[in-house]
Amino acid sequence: MRIAVDAMGGDFAPGAVVEGLTMAVKDFPDCEILLVGKTDRVAFYLEKYGLTGHPRIRQVDAGSVCEMSDHSAVSLRAKKDSSITICSKLLKSGEADAMVTPGHTGATVAATKVICRTLPGIDRPGLGASMPHQTGRFLLMDAGANTDCTPINLVQFAIMGSIYAEMLYNVPNPRVGLLSVGGEDVKGCDLTKQTFQLLEHLPINFVGNVEADSVFEGVADVLIADGFTGNVLLKGAEGLAKSTIFWLKRVLTKNAMRFIGATLAHNAFRELKAIGAADSIGGAPLLGINGICIIGHGGSNPTAVRNAIRVAAECVRFGLNDRIVALNKECQTILNEVEKTEKALF
Amino acid sequence: MRIAVDAMGGDFAPGAVVEGLTMAVKDFPDCEILLVGKTDRVAFYLEKYGLTGHPRIRQVDAGSVCEMSDHSAVSLRAKKDSSITICSKLLKSGEADAMVTPGHTGATVAATKVICRTLPGIDRPGLGASMPHQTGRFLLMDAGANTDCTPINLVQFAIMGSIYAEMLYNVPNPRVGLLSVGGEDVKGCDLTKQTFQLLEHLPINFVGNVEADSVFEGVADVLIADGFTGNVLLKGAEGLAKSTIFWLKRVLTKNAMRFIGATLAHNAFRELKAIGAADSIGGAPLLGINGICIIGHGGSNPTAVRNAIRVAAECVRFGLNDRIVALNKECQTILNEVEKTEKALF
Repeated sequence: MRIAVDAMGGDFAPGAVVEGLTMAVKDFPDCEILLVGKTDRVAFYLEKYGLTGHPRIRQVDAGSVCEMSDHSAVSLRAKKDSSITICSKLLKSGEADAMVTPGHTGATVAATKVICRTLPGIDRPGLGASMPHQTGRFLLMDAGANTDCTPINLVQFAIMGSIYAEMLYNVPNPRVGLLSVGGEDVKGCDLTKQTFQLLEHLPINFVGNVEADSVFEGVADVLIADGFTGNVLLKGAEGLAKSTIFWLKRVLTKNAMRFIGATLAHNAFRELKAIGAADSIGGAPLLGINGICIIGHGGSNPTAVRNAIRVAAECVRFGLNDRIVALNKECQTILNEVEKTEKALF
Repeated sequence: MRIAVDAMGGDFAPGAVVEGLTMAVKDFPDCEILLVGKTDRVAFYLEKYGLTGHPRIRQVDAGSVCEMSDHSAVSLRAKKDSSITICSKLLKSGEADAMVTPGHTGATVAATKVICRTLPGIDRPGLGASMPHQTGRFLLMDAGANTDCTPINLVQFAIMGSIYAEMLYNVPNPRVGLLSVGGEDVKGCDLTKQTFQLLEHLPINFVGNVEADSVFEGVADVLIADGFTGNVLLKGAEGLAKSTIFWLKRVLTKNAMRFIGATLAHNAFRELKAIGAADSIGGAPLLGINGICIIGHGGSNPTAVRNAIRVAAECVRFGLNDRIVALNKECQTILNEVEKTEKALF
């Protein structure tokens, strides 16, 4: 299996990416890595981490890099030899079975959409983000790839998210919830109300509307939202977690007794921080692209890079995209039938 | 000043509401309370808290109560003598200058909209929720009254929120941010992009798009969103805060040393919890209604009830609604001019 890895993506590239490969090549002996980046810089780090001439790492040159400040569409046109674009082309041509980038999410969405296109029957790709709840994790889908969505987009996110969660969390029939502002099916905005009516008919484990406060209690394995609302939930949670650490530090350093207490318990706070960290998950899948694409966090460390490669390989072995296409086709047939029946009735 | 207080609203009604009055009548000597509820039950608690026959508390009978499980629109039609409906009627007739209810948000929005109507020039009322950031608080507007919004709704939320924040946080020129998924003005969904173009022209301190993670760092005093997204942010933050307490307990009780540390620092955790609590704020204003209406949290304790009355009285003294109408009129004139100029150009 060949995996294209964007060596230039993320805040600590290419060092963190190459360091992550030291683990990946050892842990995943069936994976060959196509390491895409500026040849000289990548070679320096391959040398540093003792990977020069590794039989399962092949360097692929990329002339430029998408910077985080670049506009997604502009960078796609202006930087035709960027590491993200080269990875997408390797995916399209079949030279790579999957791609991994800890880089610019917008640029990756733009490049893979244009170069690889979407899976047959899928209108829009969606970004799946794995978030923690009290007793495990759930997949938020879409976490930000599409700011304006139709009900059918959300239905397809549900189908893709359901299959991905089955693989990622190893649950046979994942509970799929629709992010809304009230539990009853009449609650929500126009988009969620219409989506609710469609999801009810499908062969997925749809558990209805889920409010934003109960998702953290673990009431669903997959949470469906348009990319605008999903991104607000994801970023809001990240921001609140960061501020909670800030507040904790403030209240724990107010006097000597609290400080001593905090020192005794300091391992607990490290564990608390780790709950939010997504290193073990590695990255967010861009589901619906004709090819496997895992996007890591900009701040990915070597462990996160290693785990993003693990997830990408798992998707290939699982036959993720074939399953998505099959289930989506089945669902589309059902929805067509429903539409016909409704037309006949009214 | 007369304030109608819904004695039957909230999880601890009417006990917590009447207990809150013991503080309110002492602290706000210029306020007369019209206490709306089931006469017998309210009289029992007035007796209990030594308020029977208090010169500034007048009982008003309400035949029924909106239960939390009631559908908003249904309860409005079916329970014409509910405490919420009676409060709204007192507000409409001018017998009360403001109303306070720690009850059913949906039913209150429905009742006040139908009975009191909106302020001249305001299309939709919006709910303002005060949320904590690292060094203070910000007003989220709309926190859930309108699930589907137009750009002009969001513009009016910005106008109303700006004036309310000036009063509530005592800041002369509150920074108004637009909740979006990226900092640049081209980022966002169709609704926020259109709203951005309008807000730029107005005499408010518009600071542009704000992402959900930076709101907790205090980059804006007012955060504008449609009620669906706003509610997701509010409920998501509540849920994550609750789960963080759950996770903290779990990691702090894992071994004896951590437990001793946590015991020494236990006051710090109490302080951390208090950051999220809204007792000091009292309630969320329903801005844009022709009348002052403060909606408390369902779990309001006596302190929260007392503070909701304080905020309601402050709105009346501040001349909140007159200011809203004036600023909205000024903004409408500007937007009409902008529209004319654009039409002339294209």
